[in-house]
Amino acid sequence: MLESTMMDYPLTIPLMLERAKQLFPHVEVVSLLPGAPNPETKLPTPHEHRTNYFEIHARVMKLCNALVDAGVQSGDRVATMALNSFRHLELYFAVPSVGAVCHMINIRLPPEQIGYIINHAQDKVLFIDNVFAAQLPMILQHCPSIQKVIVMGQVPGGVPVGVHDYEDFIRDQPVTFRYPEINERQASGMCYTSGTTGNPKGVLYSHRGIVLHSLASLGADLLGVSSSDTVLPVVPMFHVNAWGYPYTCSWVGAKQVYTGMFTDPKIIARTLEKESVTMTAGVPTIWIGLLDELDKAKAAGTPYKLEKLKAMIVGGSSTPRKMLVDFEVRHNLKIIPAWGMTETTPLGTANVLLPHHMALDDEARWDQMTLSGRQAPLVELEIVDGDGQTLPHDGEARGRLLVKGPWVTKSYYDNPEATASTQYNGWFDTGDIATMNAEGFMMIQDRAKDLIKSGGEWISSVDLENELMGHPAVKEAAVIGLPHPKWDERPLGVIVLREGSSANHEELNLHLAKKFAKWMLPDDYVFTDKIPLTTTGKFLKRALRDQFKDHKLPGA
Amino acid sequence: MLESTMMDYPLTIPLMLERAKQLFPHVEVVSLLPGAPNPETKLPTPHEHRTNYFEIHARVMKLCNALVDAGVQSGDRVATMALNSFRHLELYFAVPSVGAVCHMINIRLPPEQIGYIINHAQDKVLFIDNVFAAQLPMILQHCPSIQKVIVMGQVPGGVPVGVHDYEDFIRDQPVTFRYPEINERQASGMCYTSGTTGNPKGVLYSHRGIVLHSLASLGADLLGVSSSDTVLPVVPMFHVNAWGYPYTCSWVGAKQVYTGMFTDPKIIARTLEKESVTMTAGVPTIWIGLLDELDKAKAAGTPYKLEKLKAMIVGGSSTPRKMLVDFEVRHNLKIIPAWGMTETTPLGTANVLLPHHMALDDEARWDQMTLSGRQAPLVELEIVDGDGQTLPHDGEARGRLLVKGPWVTKSYYDNPEATASTQYNGWFDTGDIATMNAEGFMMIQDRAKDLIKSGGEWISSVDLENELMGHPAVKEAAVIGLPHPKWDERPLGVIVLREGSSANHEELNLHLAKKFAKWMLPDDYVFTDKIPLTTTGKFLKRALRDQFKDHKLPGA
Repeated sequence: MLESTMMDYPLTIPLMLERAKQLFPHVEVVSLLPGAPNPETKLPTPHEHRTNYFEIHARVMKLCNALVDAGVQSGDRVATMALNSFRHLELYFAVPSVGAVCHMINIRLPPEQIGYIINHAQDKVLFIDNVFAAQLPMILQHCPSIQKVIVMGQVPGGVPVGVHDYEDFIRDQPVTFRYPEINERQASGMCYTSGTTGNPKGVLYSHRGIVLHSLASLGADLLGVSSSDTVLPVVPMFHVNAWGYPYTCSWVGAKQVYTGMFTDPKIIARTLEKESVTMTAGVPTIWIGLLDELDKAKAAGTPYKLEKLKAMIVGGSSTPRKMLVDFEVRHNLKIIPAWGMTETTPLGTANVLLPHHMALDDEARWDQMTLSGRQAPLVELEIVDGDGQTLPHDGEARGRLLVKGPWVTKSYYDNPEATASTQYNGWFDTGDIATMNAEGFMMIQDRAKDLIKSGGEWISSVDLENELMGHPAVKEAAVIGLPHPKWDERPLGVIVLREGSSANHEELNLHLAKKFAKWMLPDDYVFTDKIPLTTTGKFLKRALRDQFKDHKLPGA
Repeated sequence: MLESTMMDYPLTIPLMLERAKQLFPHVEVVSLLPGAPNPETKLPTPHEHRTNYFEIHARVMKLCNALVDAGVQSGDRVATMALNSFRHLELYFAVPSVGAVCHMINIRLPPEQIGYIINHAQDKVLFIDNVFAAQLPMILQHCPSIQKVIVMGQVPGGVPVGVHDYEDFIRDQPVTFRYPEINERQASGMCYTSGTTGNPKGVLYSHRGIVLHSLASLGADLLGVSSSDTVLPVVPMFHVNAWGYPYTCSWVGAKQVYTGMFTDPKIIARTLEKESVTMTAGVPTIWIGLLDELDKAKAAGTPYKLEKLKAMIVGGSSTPRKMLVDFEVRHNLKIIPAWGMTETTPLGTANVLLPHHMALDDEARWDQMTLSGRQAPLVELEIVDGDGQTLPHDGEARGRLLVKGPWVTKSYYDNPEATASTQYNGWFDTGDIATMNAEGFMMIQDRAKDLIKSGGEWISSVDLENELMGHPAVKEAAVIGLPHPKWDERPLGVIVLREGSSANHEELNLHLAKKFAKWMLPDDYVFTDKIPLTTTGKFLKRALRDQFKDHKLPGA
């Protein structure tokens, strides 16, 4: 092999923050922290905290020194149980900068799963937000690997004995730090999938993967983040690197806004307006709530001023078409679906329209806009049938979605069994069922296990859900398959109606019949006030199947 | 070291074209080829050729097979002597895809230098445009390493004996090709610097460097190329990878337009209009010519319609402020300076304004817009004094510009002497003198060797030139230092006046005195009809110093 004459220059996370400090020292990072309690609800009210990349850099250097002093070594796992804030951002940079692994724990998991993953990851140090401090005794009792706990934010009555305060932890440290040598393939971070079955499975991100993922995210065909942007990631920082925003934004000096525990639509809307946010990102349920809030404000004659907001990225679940249309028609706001997984760092696709799509009529353009999008540079996608044969990219053929790339996992951490079930000839098997069209636009049809098998044919629960959520009376809709003696499985619709609206079985099926064959329509509906969600905001189908396992379908 | 669980996924050039084929099969690549001769001038007239990524991909596969059949092996150098066209684009992809090195020869070099670099690189195969076929006998006589020659385009009277026609070479090959395994640090391409002294020095680009450079170029803070763009790189493909455009555009499916030998301002302007070009790139001399053409067309009441053109990238030399202002004021066109070198693949910086710059008054904004720009992600810059001490980033301190990054060379190919003179503590020493400001905007002040040393102080020839070119009578201005018995060196201005304009020594110095101290003003001027240029369009200072070495300055 003839080597090039190019420098050996490893792709590492510290490069990003160094650039932010040098080029964008005064650009702000805004956080809403839990402040004084509301006298009525007793819940904390938002307290605004403002800092900038110069200060963040100095504090990250202090934190690096403190971590090294605390005995954190290369490869050690340092856990966070924290919401979105500047301190969590500091951990995003400091932990990998000392060669350790920032393990972002999904704080919405049940305590026993949190205990499981801390023990599985063998976390050595834990950084925890004050609002979760009540969980500390349980964690310390069941997780012997944890040698040190640092609490972020004030705890009424002071921190427990043996536990450190974050500001004390870094206070006396120098603002310069000499980075250790870092191999770009070294682990930099860690997340566990909040899988709906079995124990959570861990993925170790790499410096290389994070740098490439961030670089790709700068492109207009993916996220298009630039130094002119102000970004509010509603997606939590414990949810797959907050889709990469903390790194991507820092690298190009975009202003970052974090609302922490405050994900109430009113506060989100107010913050989008106040901080002149240009880009935001979250799961559909967040945007459904925001849409209501914007509608109400508009009806009251006091609309929010969101002219600067050019993109709302939707991920985590498929994008309900009606929501996308409503945002555009009623509020001139643009929804951009994206797709990814814990196992893919996470961005795999984003739906950025091509010039010729802009010439489509509205209905066709909206159809186009609901697709999951095209693969990012450096990501490869393929769909295959049950025999592993490649399927045509015609927008019709549905197959198992495979993915490949430098920020896609090849295995789960210390879990050969789970690893084996997702490896496929050098690809990662997502477990999703998808179509792809001739322009490479991919559409997630369903999780393989959520497809409904009726009389030898497959029915997509996601398709039915999205169409149901297009009915004016329907706020949320989930569709699951129930066992059926004749057809194997048949669909049941689980519906949350809008306040003051009504709809029945026939009306809903009439609505669906415009688009679906008769045999695809749900055999029955149940109406409820809440659909259980996963910790990352997706419909929890497993819980629904449990809940309705004894439901008797008509004719079954 | 704790390894991540991410896939091993090498960053290689074939990925880009595969993506283009899959996602953008119908996007066009337009080339102006030399067509039938003009009866009067006997020069070829442009012949329009249109293809798309699907066809390009198929032809690249054929070319890969043909290269392998011709005995091209991993690491072999395959030379091109070619202008911008779809065939050159095919070579950009096919040669590295078989593991070989695409050596793009600067066809504007004198024959003896072309001979030198072919022999130094030990090129095995040569692809040559029909318009350069006359040079073949000389090359074949003096360059014994060349085993095979392929001519692109028809040669009147047929190709010489033993020489192949490109279309014949690929015709019978299959349209599928199995890529060999490629290491991302493997050499993919090669350019020699057309240095102004000594023999040309070679740089070997890597797959990794090209992929990262292309990915960074997608960001709005660098070039911001996306699938919505149509790009016309006037910069030649033999000039540092045409600044990366052939790769970057293909990767995201931007339409590419190549004008080959036709760089006449009329044809460029017409093509920008006809193809709805959104982004173009070239050296200042190209844009000075285009500005004249646009002015004339506007004055004649038939302005070109260039509403789609959102960015004209200027590189290779510093951007004359007046040119930038004229394009904006008279034609509403935006000039974006960028900086790079053969040794940096080439992009190091681009001048993309920050939001707060847009609020500046015009004069201040134009000052800002003439800077060389901020470092791309993954590029590091520093300025140092003669003792290697870092200088302040205050926009004032001038120092030697150092650069570092994954697409920056650490050495010259087989040239330890030249390598030694540019290595500096892990940095590449550019030989440029630059300032940097607190926001990281770098400004090239001069080549170190073009600075004029007067009485122990330094005078920037580039500063004087740009200010002189702001005088209404001046078309081009170069400033060189001449030896002076008392002051060591003193500046001489070499001026090309605009047609029908006049100016004298006093008028020019009066113009300069608004901005420069009296001791910085040229001691004398000479008026000429042409300033010699390097092969890449820069003022050839060495030739000017030769030409005027006996010029007697007043008072010397």
